Amino acid sequence: MIKPPHATVPPGITTLADYEAAAQAHLPPEVWRHIQEGAGEERTLARNRAAFARWGFLPRAMADLRGGTTALSLFGRAHLAPLMLAPIAYQRLAHPDGELAVTRAAAALGAGMIASTLSSVSLEEIAHTARDASRQLGLAPSPLWFQLYLQPDRADSLALVRRAEAAGFEAIVLTVDAAIKPAGLSLPAGIEAANLKGMTRLRQTATAGGRIILGTALADAAPRWEDLEWLRATTRLPVLVKGMLLDEDARRAVEMGADGLILSNHGGRVLDGLPSPLDVLPGLREAIGTSLPVLIDSGIRSGADMAKAIALGTTAVLLGRPQMHALAVAGMAGAAHALHLLRTELEMTMAQLGCPTLADLTPRRLIRIHGEF
Amino acid sequence: MIKPPHATVPPGITTLADYEAAAQAHLPPEVWRHIQEGAGEERTLARNRAAFARWGFLPRAMADLRGGTTALSLFGRAHLAPLMLAPIAYQRLAHPDGELAVTRAAAALGAGMIASTLSSVSLEEIAHTARDASRQLGLAPSPLWFQLYLQPDRADSLALVRRAEAAGFEAIVLTVDAAIKPAGLSLPAGIEAANLKGMTRLRQTATAGGRIILGTALADAAPRWEDLEWLRATTRLPVLVKGMLLDEDARRAVEMGADGLILSNHGGRVLDGLPSPLDVLPGLREAIGTSLPVLIDSGIRSGADMAKAIALGTTAVLLGRPQMHALAVAGMAGAAHALHLLRTELEMTMAQLGCPTLADLTPRRLIRIHGEF
Amino acid sequence: MIKPPHATVPPGITTLADYEAAAQAHLPPEVWRHIQEGAGEERTLARNRAAFARWGFLPRAMADLRGGTTALSLFGRAHLAPLMLAPIAYQRLAHPDGELAVTRAAAALGAGMIASTLSSVSLEEIAHTARDASRQLGLAPSPLWFQLYLQPDRADSLALVRRAEAAGFEAIVLTVDAAIKPAGLSLPAGIEAANLKGMTRLRQTATAGGRIILGTALADAAPRWEDLEWLRATTRLPVLVKGMLLDEDARRAVEMGADGLILSNHGGRVLDGLPSPLDVLPGLREAIGTSLPVLIDSGIRSGADMAKAIALGTTAVLLGRPQMHALAVAGMAGAAHALHLLRTELEMTMAQLGCPTLADLTPRRLIRIHGEF
Amino acid sequence: MIKPPHATVPPGITTLADYEAAAQAHLPPEVWRHIQEGAGEERTLARNRAAFARWGFLPRAMADLRGGTTALSLFGRAHLAPLMLAPIAYQRLAHPDGELAVTRAAAALGAGMIASTLSSVSLEEIAHTARDASRQLGLAPSPLWFQLYLQPDRADSLALVRRAEAAGFEAIVLTVDAAIKPAGLSLPAGIEAANLKGMTRLRQTATAGGRIILGTALADAAPRWEDLEWLRATTRLPVLVKGMLLDEDARRAVEMGADGLILSNHGGRVLDGLPSPLDVLPGLREAIGTSLPVLIDSGIRSGADMAKAIALGTTAVLLGRPQMHALAVAGMAGAAHALHLLRTELEMTMAQLGCPTLADLTPRRLIRIHGEF
Repeated sequence: MIKPPHATVPPGITTLADYEAAAQAHLPPEVWRHIQEGAGEERTLARNRAAFARWGFLPRAMADLRGGTTALSLFGRAHLAPLMLAPIAYQRLAHPDGELAVTRAAAALGAGMIASTLSSVSLEEIAHTARDASRQLGLAPSPLWFQLYLQPDRADSLALVRRAEAAGFEAIVLTVDAAIKPAGLSLPAGIEAANLKGMTRLRQTATAGGRIILGTALADAAPRWEDLEWLRATTRLPVLVKGMLLDEDARRAVEMGADGLILSNHGGRVLDGLPSPLDVLPGLREAIGTSLPVLIDSGIRSGADMAKAIALGTTAVLLGRPQMHALAVAGMAGAAHALHLLRTELEMTMAQLGCPTLADLTPRRLIRIHGEF
Repeated sequence: MIKPPHATVPPGITTLADYEAAAQAHLPPEVWRHIQEGAGEERTLARNRAAFARWGFLPRAMADLRGGTTALSLFGRAHLAPLMLAPIAYQRLAHPDGELAVTRAAAALGAGMIASTLSSVSLEEIAHTARDASRQLGLAPSPLWFQLYLQPDRADSLALVRRAEAAGFEAIVLTVDAAIKPAGLSLPAGIEAANLKGMTRLRQTATAGGRIILGTALADAAPRWEDLEWLRATTRLPVLVKGMLLDEDARRAVEMGADGLILSNHGGRVLDGLPSPLDVLPGLREAIGTSLPVLIDSGIRSGADMAKAIALGTTAVLLGRPQMHALAVAGMAGAAHALHLLRTELEMTMAQLGCPTLADLTPRRLIRIHGEF
Repeated sequence: MIKPPHATVPPGITTLADYEAAAQAHLPPEVWRHIQEGAGEERTLARNRAAFARWGFLPRAMADLRGGTTALSLFGRAHLAPLMLAPIAYQRLAHPDGELAVTRAAAALGAGMIASTLSSVSLEEIAHTARDASRQLGLAPSPLWFQLYLQPDRADSLALVRRAEAAGFEAIVLTVDAAIKPAGLSLPAGIEAANLKGMTRLRQTATAGGRIILGTALADAAPRWEDLEWLRATTRLPVLVKGMLLDEDARRAVEMGADGLILSNHGGRVLDGLPSPLDVLPGLREAIGTSLPVLIDSGIRSGADMAKAIALGTTAVLLGRPQMHALAVAGMAGAAHALHLLRTELEMTMAQLGCPTLADLTPRRLIRIHGEF
Repeated sequence: MIKPPHATVPPGITTLADYEAAAQAHLPPEVWRHIQEGAGEERTLARNRAAFARWGFLPRAMADLRGGTTALSLFGRAHLAPLMLAPIAYQRLAHPDGELAVTRAAAALGAGMIASTLSSVSLEEIAHTARDASRQLGLAPSPLWFQLYLQPDRADSLALVRRAEAAGFEAIVLTVDAAIKPAGLSLPAGIEAANLKGMTRLRQTATAGGRIILGTALADAAPRWEDLEWLRATTRLPVLVKGMLLDEDARRAVEMGADGLILSNHGGRVLDGLPSPLDVLPGLREAIGTSLPVLIDSGIRSGADMAKAIALGTTAVLLGRPQMHALAVAGMAGAAHALHLLRTELEMTMAQLGCPTLADLTPRRLIRIHGEF
């Protein structure tokens, strides 16, 4: 028996881990596995969490906390906190309202959101819902970005960019990991890639000469640097590149005009063995300097995790799987509550560290933990 | 069914771990959880114990042990052993006699005690009971200190200091961690902060502009350096600062006239990710020299732990949660027995190490253990 | 009840680990233990797997994958992928078709195979079956090598070499670890060392003077350097030495004319405490240079493992125990499927890493993982 | 129900670990705990085993094993293998024949034995039994040493030395750890310290002034350097000092005329936190050179462990708890079998390592294993 989602936050939920623990009962087993699973032996999945555990805190005593705040500005837009909702495919798998519930939660909390190319609701409807929700609550619209998977046919990629621009999205996030997407969940009836109707798609098939992946159309269609060049020339919106981990690739993306980077290992879902974004962050910051926004996802589950990421150089963090957990448990109310929990934890952590602002979160507030793993 | 406390030490208890194992049956589940729990994922809680496990012993063979002793002098007062009872809030949660049972145990064993601002018995009654108990046993009074939480209203803080002076407390311990106290246990009927009747208190509430903690009265009231300056100027008693971990903060406290430091992460209860006091101790001793008393708490569970802390530079240790365990199991008899067990273990350890006095416990008697965790 | 093998691949098998999990039900307990067990406390067995887990991947973003392939050339022969079947004794323990099923699977997938001196089917029949299978499938014959255990009587060793040459084997693999073979499984009726009929064999027996192993005929017959000299002078086929781990031994073997090396700890079966071949590979490559083929076995269970071994300098990998698992579950179909899974995983890994060819798999694509074990 | 000991080796026992697993059923629970337990949290007990696991092997390929042997000479006496039976108190706790069964086993296998001051059979009877057993088996007498605990009354210590000399013991082993022996098992009726009848003994008691251990007769009687001086002057037998771990103490003992050292942490029974003898061995060998015999005990459970200890510089190893396990399971037959198993494993290990003699076991045959614990 799969439990229906609650209409409001159920009692006893005080952390994102509580949402994760509660979510399984609200989801079909194959959807639960799809949300939770990682590639291979799930070492990268585990590393995403362990990377945070390897950093501890060194608080300043008796610091003056008066006038503290978590606010920041990104591409000229005010954000209340360094926290955005990561792009996630097919959110209606977790709740009938899917992306629309998440969109309303983001609007209510003033949090940024990145809509996925593979959303189960069209990008136009997401943008419309976001504006409506902010207006009804009497709040300023919260930041809204669009995540782009390149399509085999460039005309289709271009159409997605133009639609996002027209709908009022404020930045394009080009995902470049997952060059080949592993075969995944069979989508249940009624759930589809709402943005891609009528577009060309590729699948792995038997080919002549015993070729499996390399040497087939699937590998030939993987994103290349020239695609970033094209995208940069195509739109006037800020372009962020999501899914790189190497310093040299980051430098090249910046040279080609990327406005920001999102370090990610795709939540450990694509290739087992990848390092955690948190682990590569300090070196990458050294390589590209501090002026460009660098966001990370993969493994953030608490305000303490956020504080660590920020102290190590990230501009803001993206929240992935926990969206699906909160959505499955309590729809829009759950997603909004999860965002509130994270912000409260971040503020409590900053207070205990003696850091009234994000700028006070520096590497000096952290200590590397050795020998406990 | 919650077992009532024993009147005397029950059979089979030979270590502090035995008291911990036995205590749960004597406590309501929510009190047990409150005593045991740590912040977040309880990594700091685990680290407090693991820090001791990472040090081993290197004994001197065939040392002359004749005339050995564990005695020391602190602020001009003789202590039989480098062991004090840490300040703990609301000890009547563990036993109807609460702080009074612990006070009598300390007097009987000649151990020092630090009464908490949040005691469930008034500081005057604790001081009175301590003197009475020593007199009845024909022993010299044991050392008695008062732990101070700054109150939102400075007049209230001042009143506490004056009452402690008047009641005969011999030092003031200013706690500076837990800048914001997390919401905790709801106190059962009949248990309250006996010292704070009629004083102003703050709680987290919804505020205008979506502020959560930072920018609210709660964060604004966190202890600042000027508060230490005020306290130092206010009392002639020795002032110790409890809850700092940074070398630079320790140096500043010393410069501002602190007479001693107590390194602590609040037993892992406030912010997950803090290092163990034992881990920061050697560096801090290097930073501030050897003349000032530096005590530590958090994680001491045996005489071997005490020997390690002393060899690394602590002057004496504070005993926290084990007080509550022994109290729950057997009240005053349990607390006295726990103190005796620790002293016996410390002496046995010193004998096996070839160290007849505390001064013989140096870093050369320790060896860092790598690669076992 | 022991389950009979399936005729085709059963549903739900998508990794080599699935074959391992399924195999136990198809094997008598003593055969299962014999296949799985390692020497001593099985630390080397565990290390063979852990060695791979200690390396992670650093992918290049947006690399051009067009025209990719896993092909290589070895001793003048084309291999479709850097993957060969390791020599395994008595494969009829796992399936009635034994070596013949494996031979047909290798032919169907175009994979190389190394027949064991201790095969339960004669080397002549293996060679004959391999040629027949390739011809029936209309494919070029796949590479076929012979593994040699030196016999107590050199005439017997010579006879084995001459038979392998006559049967069309293309290289000789001299195994030099397992100097003394530990007493193993009692072979069931009908399974025997088909190649060794009529040859002299040694067993451990009580000897005069309380000697146990050292100083007995068993130790005296262990392979010596002069045996390699003899073999090199005896055959015109390429000679590979299997089972060394030391740089200095590798250099000496190369100086004596070895055409290739196979690093191996015999799957952890002979001496507990040996390092993993993967761990010694980089140093050994530095010692002997990059021109000579160096293969490894012990611990490869996925295409990701293959990619790591190749990036660290191996020319190709040998697949050991998984042959027996797949064979037990589904005979020839299982073995062929296992080979296909590995190749698919290798190609997917190369694609995600941005490496279209084996030459792109360099140490720069790897990152050493610390602190997680 | 406690199983009676077997008269012969039961089936299925092929390692010392098998004896350990089987022994519990043959022993009263309190005796089993007494044999197995370690001090404190048993970290030293675990470390004694882990120290061996941290070393792996690097075998030489194709070495010439002809004429190999495990023999060595110690104080002018031939030993068949670098293996002696450690002194263990009250062996009749494990088997009615106690020390006599072990003595006969040692004689049968030609292994050295060290009789304990606290034997449950008199030292004279042990010496007599050893000679008888060797004579009956037609073997040369095996080496026999006596372990000395200093007695509170020096006349008693002297009497023990003279009795050992008179009975034909060939060396005196002075134990200097366990300065204060922790309260242990209550001996069952009929088991006593057979050598100490009528001698003065000390126990921990309440003393004036609240003293517990330090400052009491117990601590005052701990062994001092002057005691070693006295012993060295008192006997013409070789004197070994057992239980030191520090380089500087080892040097001092050698300067005072000690003929050999036995590194030991008393099997982890006395003070938790001590390093393993194996861990301190290489440094100590560097400190005192290679000429003096240095033996170790604590943690040896296999021939592979023996090979590691010898490669790191030990002259021979002592076998402790496994004596009691084998004794409990099968008396004299068990003890003899355990000795035979260890010798066989040592020879197999040497053969696989390409080491025909003990002198070939050098640090170059070992590799330090990191990151697996």
